[in-house]
Amino acid sequence: MVSIVGKSGSGKTTLLEKVVAELTKRGYRVGTIKHDVHGFEIDHEGKDSWRHKMAGAKTVVLSSPDRVAVIKDVDEEWLPDKLAFSFIDDVDIIITEGYKKAGYPKIEVIRRAKSAKPICRKDKNLMGIASDIKFKCKDVPCININDSKAVANLIENRFLGRTAPSGRNNKAELTVNGKRINLKPFIERLLAEGIAGLVSGLKGCNNPRHIEVKIQGR
Amino acid sequence: MVSIVGKSGSGKTTLLEKVVAELTKRGYRVGTIKHDVHGFEIDHEGKDSWRHKMAGAKTVVLSSPDRVAVIKDVDEEWLPDKLAFSFIDDVDIIITEGYKKAGYPKIEVIRRAKSAKPICRKDKNLMGIASDIKFKCKDVPCININDSKAVANLIENRFLGRTAPSGRNNKAELTVNGKRINLKPFIERLLAEGIAGLVSGLKGCNNPRHIEVKIQGR
Repeated sequence: MVSIVGKSGSGKTTLLEKVVAELTKRGYRVGTIKHDVHGFEIDHEGKDSWRHKMAGAKTVVLSSPDRVAVIKDVDEEWLPDKLAFSFIDDVDIIITEGYKKAGYPKIEVIRRAKSAKPICRKDKNLMGIASDIKFKCKDVPCININDSKAVANLIENRFLGRTAPSGRNNKAELTVNGKRINLKPFIERLLAEGIAGLVSGLKGCNNPRHIEVKIQGR
Repeated sequence: MVSIVGKSGSGKTTLLEKVVAELTKRGYRVGTIKHDVHGFEIDHEGKDSWRHKMAGAKTVVLSSPDRVAVIKDVDEEWLPDKLAFSFIDDVDIIITEGYKKAGYPKIEVIRRAKSAKPICRKDKNLMGIASDIKFKCKDVPCININDSKAVANLIENRFLGRTAPSGRNNKAELTVNGKRINLKPFIERLLAEGIAGLVSGLKGCNNPRHIEVKIQGR
């Protein structure tokens, strides 16, 4: 996961769409997460999804042969990790628009006409600046704001050359009746390694990187 | 899961929205799935989600403090079970619009002006008819098409009065690297009962009805 951050109006969406297009052209599958603190509109008055939602449905799913859409009420904001884990399982990289305060590797967009002052200059997760100003940075590259290929290169070099981590030292998450349960390290290891061990012995489960088990009372 | 089915234009959406509103008023949490064989439009030209998607993103997520939306490309149509399992975890009942050929309990909407001929008359999953025609049915109730309360009663009596099943005889699903794995009964039981047993001993996990474990390589 990598974040494109910057002040409102600096050109985050424009840079993101160019970088997504470039990485897609290079054969990567990309997912995106847009952080919208002020809320967003997605369905429109009179459409069936809107009617379902207005009637009170907590979650509305639309399904067609090539596309699925979901609109879901949440009690508190879902962080990118949870969003990615819940909804995005089929991509090579996730690029977020926003989340400047979160701890993801980030590229800051700075446009002179908006504000010449970096907001993430001292953030240890800053991995690059894209700007129409030539910043002199010791630690991170400063790329021309229109050079989306160079931004794509930066992301590709850092994230997309490596192979996936293998079985040991896994992370486990447990949700019971919809509630996330805090796991003590021993229990987490027991679940993670026990299930990974069991699963890796099953047919069709070579090199299990991502395992999900769901158990539902009949 | 219960389906509201019927010919195009029979009034499925209208009945569904009234039934969702009625069940919501009664305190139930409802999720909906709309089957749209011809595809749907959800985001709109120029909006950021549209720009992300047009740039080539496979999955686009929008996140605000109270709502999440997801637009996702799929290689083949996801069936309601998979949609429900992937996206809807916090409701008491799921009502689908459409899926007349699927094996879910279903209520058929028949409007005289469209077609007086039932399409699911011989379907063993038919649990009721909502119509402006008075059908004489031996097996299933025929409810007035405008009597959404009676339809809500039918659903409530059949699905929402029961208490949740407890620990034993659970169902387990396993997904590895995004691929669903077929489980032999022995392995399914081992996963389901082993994990349920472990989990029910943890603090805050009384009466575990729905358990999810996700394991991710670090």
